[in-house]
Amino acid sequence: MTDRTGEPLSRRALLAGSALSVGGAIGGAVAVGAVAARDSGDGPRATPPSTVDYGGQMVPFYGRHQAGIATAAQAHAAFVALDLAAGVDRAALRRLMLLLSDDAARLTQGRAPLADSQPELAQVPARLTVTFGFGPRLFDVAGLAGQRPATLQQLPAFPIDKLQQRWCGGDLLLQLCADDPLTIAHAQRMLVKDSRSFATVRWVQRGFRRGRGMQDDGVTQRNVLGQLDGTGNPAPGSAGFDSAVWTDSGPQWLHGGTTLVLRRIRAELESWDAADTAGKEFAVGRRLSDGAPLTGRHEQDPPDFAAKNALGLSVISEFSHVARAHVTGDRQRIFRRPYNYDDPPGPDGAADTGLVFAAYQRDVGGQFLPIQRNLAEADLLNSWVTPIGSAVFAVPPGCEAGGWIGEGLLG
Amino acid sequence: MTDRTGEPLSRRALLAGSALSVGGAIGGAVAVGAVAARDSGDGPRATPPSTVDYGGQMVPFYGRHQAGIATAAQAHAAFVALDLAAGVDRAALRRLMLLLSDDAARLTQGRAPLADSQPELAQVPARLTVTFGFGPRLFDVAGLAGQRPATLQQLPAFPIDKLQQRWCGGDLLLQLCADDPLTIAHAQRMLVKDSRSFATVRWVQRGFRRGRGMQDDGVTQRNVLGQLDGTGNPAPGSAGFDSAVWTDSGPQWLHGGTTLVLRRIRAELESWDAADTAGKEFAVGRRLSDGAPLTGRHEQDPPDFAAKNALGLSVISEFSHVARAHVTGDRQRIFRRPYNYDDPPGPDGAADTGLVFAAYQRDVGGQFLPIQRNLAEADLLNSWVTPIGSAVFAVPPGCEAGGWIGEGLLG
Repeated sequence: MTDRTGEPLSRRALLAGSALSVGGAIGGAVAVGAVAARDSGDGPRATPPSTVDYGGQMVPFYGRHQAGIATAAQAHAAFVALDLAAGVDRAALRRLMLLLSDDAARLTQGRAPLADSQPELAQVPARLTVTFGFGPRLFDVAGLAGQRPATLQQLPAFPIDKLQQRWCGGDLLLQLCADDPLTIAHAQRMLVKDSRSFATVRWVQRGFRRGRGMQDDGVTQRNVLGQLDGTGNPAPGSAGFDSAVWTDSGPQWLHGGTTLVLRRIRAELESWDAADTAGKEFAVGRRLSDGAPLTGRHEQDPPDFAAKNALGLSVISEFSHVARAHVTGDRQRIFRRPYNYDDPPGPDGAADTGLVFAAYQRDVGGQFLPIQRNLAEADLLNSWVTPIGSAVFAVPPGCEAGGWIGEGLLG
Repeated sequence: MTDRTGEPLSRRALLAGSALSVGGAIGGAVAVGAVAARDSGDGPRATPPSTVDYGGQMVPFYGRHQAGIATAAQAHAAFVALDLAAGVDRAALRRLMLLLSDDAARLTQGRAPLADSQPELAQVPARLTVTFGFGPRLFDVAGLAGQRPATLQQLPAFPIDKLQQRWCGGDLLLQLCADDPLTIAHAQRMLVKDSRSFATVRWVQRGFRRGRGMQDDGVTQRNVLGQLDGTGNPAPGSAGFDSAVWTDSGPQWLHGGTTLVLRRIRAELESWDAADTAGKEFAVGRRLSDGAPLTGRHEQDPPDFAAKNALGLSVISEFSHVARAHVTGDRQRIFRRPYNYDDPPGPDGAADTGLVFAAYQRDVGGQFLPIQRNLAEADLLNSWVTPIGSAVFAVPPGCEAGGWIGEGLLG
């Protein structure tokens, strides 16, 4: 009934009397009814709506796909990996996913979960999305090893990796994204609370992008290296996006879902700082100032890998990041949705910063791995980035109102 | 020439031709000239300005007071405490403060420091402010113990404290606030880099509030306990604010400055969750839903400590937080500018969250300490909050263009 690439809803817009006209666009009476019911107690706000109400914007929870993937990236993210406790079985997992789905559905629509002791903190949904992912071991725990998709494989070790176990693995992923950090903090606490009888927290990775209203919506953002990051991503809602991201083969329960590869990639800023602009641009294959390929004028110009300079050498090195990461064919592409992290520096002032790199694709083996092998083999950028965490999760499809995430597998 | 309580500047607004008309309001030609010079290379943006440009808004660096105190609280903060290295003396401190002041002046106006290797990341000032504070030991290091103000005393131990040394103390404070987290990350890295030859990083505390545009500007925000936090604060720009915050006695160099007490206060959410609403409201003396005192109807109604209920008991308990924290007289008040923190939960899912509580006042001994003693003695809220960090800093006055922060002491 809906994909989530359109404009999100604003609660104020709904209350201003346009509920009926937008009801159809967001997929029916459920979301609208919920909003109306929730606000009927104290009536519409007395103050006139301001021109900006980012806090009131909502992304539908229910739909064919889970939200938080095709959704235009929110400003803040928390990736929470849980390890299932001993004794948890398929029935317990079902109860857990029912509980989590119900609370996530409420929180994303600006309503407090039933057990919420700070219900006031739920009132600013700020485009909150909650996306669930299943790690490899969850299938063994559930007695469903036969349903584990082939795409859900641990990545092989790459020579550039310096993985730290504290950033790796996990049985169940909660991916929370919202434009407001207090919204994230509250939703995370509610969902972690739900899971405490079933699981322990393995790791939490917080990430951020530019805040809402800081730049024009939709522009490619810079990462902590100063690079424009995400140029050439398939566009959510396009046929190319759908064929790259949404699973359409393998176990039936995953159709309409996807696979997430989550890598924690440290930026080696000490040496990056020491390099000159020409050297950095040669390594990346793009200009730092505007992201244009070295053979083009604008960020979105396609790189011309055949172009030569006066000496007959390739303008874009075959060892540059853009050349090594290049794929042809929509079904070979991956969809990147990266966040920055910035942990406290060491006592000596050295930064601890980088990317929480989230890549979504139908098929890890057929899409992510070939690109990653190419990069690990000879990407000039490798001197300045170090993967220190790695995890993979099967992301089930969405569900309709009354349903829950994972019901196709665990139901 | 300026205080900073008015509307911040937008770079787009300046470029749209209104530079001359707003120049006076922000304090003269320096800031405007700098902006014009910086943007003259590539001209005004080709795209029409959107209705929102939070990222382009700037707070003047120069002025009688440092920015970041009377400035309406930005969405994100980083408090960075540095320890001065062995061998650093008054001359070295002078060089450090010159360097830091110059880079801070540039960064807050959307310009890159001279040594910036990622100058593109400086282009979104997002109301960045950088505020410097001097810890007690800095005066010994500089050979200026006689200039240490009496207000700059380590706080006595309170029975409710469970201080952890990793959140205490520090010789030099960098307080960075901005509406965008990437702006904070970049500015923090630049300033920490400046300081690496002079100091080590002792601790970093990140904090957040609701993002810009998430709620109406100026409303009192909720903290992680769900309370409206900041009701009854003196209003920046008012005479009451000025007389409570800006130093007007003691050593001359600090006049126009203030003192910051920074406390890290853990929220005991496990037990807070277990309490019922009536119990919480009795402890606080205010309603959780709207922040009104238990004797009033609206958040800003003054609490009536004499009001009795039908049984003849005080409606607002004398042991409630609002009663214990109450002071009469503007010069006894403190100015609170709190941020939330939310670190990863433990493996068992218990939250590690609370407040980075920043309080500014002329005189710690005459303002902060009496309130804190009252609270420590008998505040019902004490069961649910635990101070785990504590530091005090003298905050020098601002400086004019061409000057630097701390010149009255170190120059």
